[in-house]
Amino acid sequence: MKLTKYLPLAAALVALPAMGFAQEAEMAADMTPPNEEIGYIFTTFMFLVTGFLVMWMGAGFSMLEAGLVRSKNVAMQLTKNIALFAIAAVMYYIIGYNLMYPGDAWSITNVLGAFSMTSLEPVGGSPDTDLTYASVGSDFFFQLMFCATTASIVSGTLAERIKLWPFLIFTVVLTGFIYPIQASWKWGGGFLDANYGFLDFAGSTVVHSVGGWAALAGALILGPRIGKYKDGKVTAFPGSNLPLATLGTFILWLGWFGFNGGSQLYMDTAGNVADISRIFANTNTAAAGGAIAALIVTQLVYGKVDLTMVLNGSLAGLVSITAEPLTPTLGAATLIGAVGGIIVVFAVPLLDKLKIDDVVGAIPVHLFCGVYGTIAVVFTNPDATLGGQLISIVIVGAFTFVVSGIVWFILKMVMGIRVSEEEEIMGLDKGELGMEAYPEFYKG
Amino acid sequence: MKLTKYLPLAAALVALPAMGFAQEAEMAADMTPPNEEIGYIFTTFMFLVTGFLVMWMGAGFSMLEAGLVRSKNVAMQLTKNIALFAIAAVMYYIIGYNLMYPGDAWSITNVLGAFSMTSLEPVGGSPDTDLTYASVGSDFFFQLMFCATTASIVSGTLAERIKLWPFLIFTVVLTGFIYPIQASWKWGGGFLDANYGFLDFAGSTVVHSVGGWAALAGALILGPRIGKYKDGKVTAFPGSNLPLATLGTFILWLGWFGFNGGSQLYMDTAGNVADISRIFANTNTAAAGGAIAALIVTQLVYGKVDLTMVLNGSLAGLVSITAEPLTPTLGAATLIGAVGGIIVVFAVPLLDKLKIDDVVGAIPVHLFCGVYGTIAVVFTNPDATLGGQLISIVIVGAFTFVVSGIVWFILKMVMGIRVSEEEEIMGLDKGELGMEAYPEFYKG
Amino acid sequence: MKLTKYLPLAAALVALPAMGFAQEAEMAADMTPPNEEIGYIFTTFMFLVTGFLVMWMGAGFSMLEAGLVRSKNVAMQLTKNIALFAIAAVMYYIIGYNLMYPGDAWSITNVLGAFSMTSLEPVGGSPDTDLTYASVGSDFFFQLMFCATTASIVSGTLAERIKLWPFLIFTVVLTGFIYPIQASWKWGGGFLDANYGFLDFAGSTVVHSVGGWAALAGALILGPRIGKYKDGKVTAFPGSNLPLATLGTFILWLGWFGFNGGSQLYMDTAGNVADISRIFANTNTAAAGGAIAALIVTQLVYGKVDLTMVLNGSLAGLVSITAEPLTPTLGAATLIGAVGGIIVVFAVPLLDKLKIDDVVGAIPVHLFCGVYGTIAVVFTNPDATLGGQLISIVIVGAFTFVVSGIVWFILKMVMGIRVSEEEEIMGLDKGELGMEAYPEFYKG
Repeated sequence: MKLTKYLPLAAALVALPAMGFAQEAEMAADMTPPNEEIGYIFTTFMFLVTGFLVMWMGAGFSMLEAGLVRSKNVAMQLTKNIALFAIAAVMYYIIGYNLMYPGDAWSITNVLGAFSMTSLEPVGGSPDTDLTYASVGSDFFFQLMFCATTASIVSGTLAERIKLWPFLIFTVVLTGFIYPIQASWKWGGGFLDANYGFLDFAGSTVVHSVGGWAALAGALILGPRIGKYKDGKVTAFPGSNLPLATLGTFILWLGWFGFNGGSQLYMDTAGNVADISRIFANTNTAAAGGAIAALIVTQLVYGKVDLTMVLNGSLAGLVSITAEPLTPTLGAATLIGAVGGIIVVFAVPLLDKLKIDDVVGAIPVHLFCGVYGTIAVVFTNPDATLGGQLISIVIVGAFTFVVSGIVWFILKMVMGIRVSEEEEIMGLDKGELGMEAYPEFYKG
Repeated sequence: MKLTKYLPLAAALVALPAMGFAQEAEMAADMTPPNEEIGYIFTTFMFLVTGFLVMWMGAGFSMLEAGLVRSKNVAMQLTKNIALFAIAAVMYYIIGYNLMYPGDAWSITNVLGAFSMTSLEPVGGSPDTDLTYASVGSDFFFQLMFCATTASIVSGTLAERIKLWPFLIFTVVLTGFIYPIQASWKWGGGFLDANYGFLDFAGSTVVHSVGGWAALAGALILGPRIGKYKDGKVTAFPGSNLPLATLGTFILWLGWFGFNGGSQLYMDTAGNVADISRIFANTNTAAAGGAIAALIVTQLVYGKVDLTMVLNGSLAGLVSITAEPLTPTLGAATLIGAVGGIIVVFAVPLLDKLKIDDVVGAIPVHLFCGVYGTIAVVFTNPDATLGGQLISIVIVGAFTFVVSGIVWFILKMVMGIRVSEEEEIMGLDKGELGMEAYPEFYKG
Repeated sequence: MKLTKYLPLAAALVALPAMGFAQEAEMAADMTPPNEEIGYIFTTFMFLVTGFLVMWMGAGFSMLEAGLVRSKNVAMQLTKNIALFAIAAVMYYIIGYNLMYPGDAWSITNVLGAFSMTSLEPVGGSPDTDLTYASVGSDFFFQLMFCATTASIVSGTLAERIKLWPFLIFTVVLTGFIYPIQASWKWGGGFLDANYGFLDFAGSTVVHSVGGWAALAGALILGPRIGKYKDGKVTAFPGSNLPLATLGTFILWLGWFGFNGGSQLYMDTAGNVADISRIFANTNTAAAGGAIAALIVTQLVYGKVDLTMVLNGSLAGLVSITAEPLTPTLGAATLIGAVGGIIVVFAVPLLDKLKIDDVVGAIPVHLFCGVYGTIAVVFTNPDATLGGQLISIVIVGAFTFVVSGIVWFILKMVMGIRVSEEEEIMGLDKGELGMEAYPEFYKG
């Protein structure tokens, strides 16, 4: 199997979006909402709707991961997913939200935010409410879901061998500290936003690559599953339930409309709602591009279509468009997504070559395509600079990778992060939980 | 296993929300919507969106229950769930809606409403439409889903042994009469609302405890499954498909934003949409609190985390916050939910001690936490009185339990409500339906 | 089994809606939106919300079909479903959308539209935007999902024996050409709309029957599965996972609110949002009617309830109401749906008698009920004429059936459309994809 012969194809697809896909930006005549309170209602309700779509992505990750692990580890994977979502919800209100949006309360200049709990606006609203944006509750609800998404990414990579409690403790640190601190550098008005002109519309870097870096650090310290890389051979451990994995992918695809669409942050004018519409359309077509690219490339390279690659291809397209879902044309968005799909098809075997065991392919999808998507902003948005994008990718990546690595290492030293060999072979469901996901079905 | 030693922990958690969590209520300066027709559009659309979220809970109950029963009863459980949803839809328009919202047409003073079919507003609207609320169609659509939810609760408890048709006939009575009559006492302006100051924002009592009481009456008359309680021992019958159960829980969690959020009933002003935002945020964090509490408590008590308890813990948090999702702070909401999660962990074995066989844990979740959540209103809402809450809980509970018991008893006498012993052992799928949910998979 | 004795029942139910269900239409006093830009925001956001609901139907079809095929063909069915959705997304922006909505660019008078790629409005909107409708992006997003739905219908009928790539090539033609061309005749202002007064609110004919005709043409050319019709007997091949099929049905039921509700096309006035509410309520009750009818009729005819018939019954109700979800009363909508449910119960064995092998029952649901629903418009909407409805059904059907047949025939000649006998028996998952959907579960 010579992957190299397909590199020109990939290169061409990478290059295409850069050529001739001038964005159609034009100043809107009138950016004032027709009525301030109505604008406030529109934007607030938009956050609630897009927020519940992103919340739904938590179910998507659960199903995707439950479908891609072996049946002996399914109950544990589900436990991790619902627990991490709950932990993210609590950590984000106790610490994360205000740390991420410190207002004028930066501790070190634009690097470390404020430590305080979230408080919502008073019941019934307040006469002092600033009506130019949205309610605190809706903004909190929406932003929380991004924090939870970051944690969901990690659980897939480390499946089938990590202990429950160390994973949950890492989740506490990730959702309470790592995610909000680096997110504040961009979205909280921190130094990446203020000094580097970093553009990351909905978080290819801030959310997806961060999840990916944290997962990579964990995978390196945790090591591969028993039997995965043996005598120089890679053993495939097929997912136990592909309908679940497909359902998870569809859920994520749906949720992503909220993820990218809500990141417009305003729906108070015709211009803003038209932009959200562009984002919905571009997000959809990028996912389609990723899926089709993976479909075609697996057929060409392996002679057979690979469903899990097609699923990951669509997710790759989604991650790739997330840094800039607004400015591309439909054609450019399709190609940006397609390149993401191709990256995944080639990155999955590459990771195996490096003996990095990523159970569900989260590192190719979220880290590789997160980085690629952040760079791809320069193809369609003239406000982005390659330098600003690259340095921000590196800073966020270095911070997340190093801090995550330290946390994983401490957890390994203090309490151990890996189940016993016996438990791993028996499966984490019986070993750690004492239950089975499908107790009545024979496991072959 | 000494559960009693954890009682102080539980007590502390119950007490906490009562201390120092003063609500933040403040009068909004201006409660007049900026434009009446626009307010009408906002509120109507809000009902449609929150209504479809609550409709989606029907799928959530189906998946939760299908995942928690044994594989030989799965097709029957699915049949019951889709059928009860359809029956609720029809009964509620034929009888329920106008019975529940009688306007000035109370038959006995504020106790029995009006019998008439629902008619929607004319096509294209009408010049006489009152624009201060929402369209009849949207209100009907939203309220119908609450009626269907009540019926969904019953099916889980009685699974694996009740005959299809008697269950469906009970559903006819529940959705056409029992639910709307008692709901009208609170939400239709009946005597609980008018005379007792009863507060139940989205239905911890009116929906969840009612489902729970009806289920309890059924469980007592129906008796436990064969082999469940034998020789003084409780036999666990593990659920056949935990990914389905987890999916169901995520669906319910998502749908609950509609359930609680839509119960604000208005989205025409900044104050109302800000309140809906508070409700979304509080609902989410209460679910998280319930899940985390169940996670920790099962680890402490049993030495292992129990996924189904974590799932039921999150649902318990949701039920607990449903009576008052608006006034709590995020911290209080988390604790209110956490206490719900703890209640479930201790109530499930308690029911088994009483030999009440509740297949999916619906009585602990919906009845126990429904009652607890209704009482918990007094912790954060100064308008609630403990007396008013308690008497309303008792009146609604007594009515529902007695009438349900009579209906179950009549059904038992007239046609029998339980499948034959042979059919129960063979499974209801083969016995009653003549089909299997997973015909190709070996059942162990 | 004498089906004939139930014909009077069916006839009565067909006749009922025609009697005395006068629609309640009344002219709204004021159809001018209170503010043009606000109306634009409302309608645009409505398209995004209803559009994502229809997108979600793609997941519904996937789950329904994955649940109804045998486990050896599940991975392939999932692959087809996600791939067809991606292909529809790309074909519709490259060709379909402008072909369907040609504006003044008809190539032949009102028959063939314009060939050009979709371009969205400029970023940030434009001062020249026409604020009387909705953003191009939202309209495109919404309409695209209808195109994808049409393709989803085909995959179910042809499951378990059609090759992947010919199916995908057919999907390219269907979504890029067949669907948009015929849809433009009605919704693009073409000759069926202009000359025949054809009424098809959300596409009983334009979407559902078209999917059905394309599926029928394919089924006839492809032939039945091996062993389905042998020695004059029909062998049932039970679906491998009924919870998945039920989940798919609930997803479709949910998505249909978007399908029918969004087809109101405007949400800028009180009258329009009230109409959308009517549509939600009617859509729900029609599904309920279909489910209940199938429940009762299968009990009467077969002596046992059939879950898959109940699922298809609810879908039949939904298809039947799709041509006119606005004008019926709740009662009429229930009956229209119920008749759809009855049609399906009798049509499924009828197709088997004709040896047309439709794996999931898509032809009864989408074609038969699509035609019936289109005719049923005349029962409640006085603007519809039986002649106009019938001739349009015939024209759309003839066009779709003939063109689809030609495409299937060419594909059969050029590359073959059917897997080898060996692969069919082994299952398409192992045969064509080299993977399994449930690799660890024993297949009986």
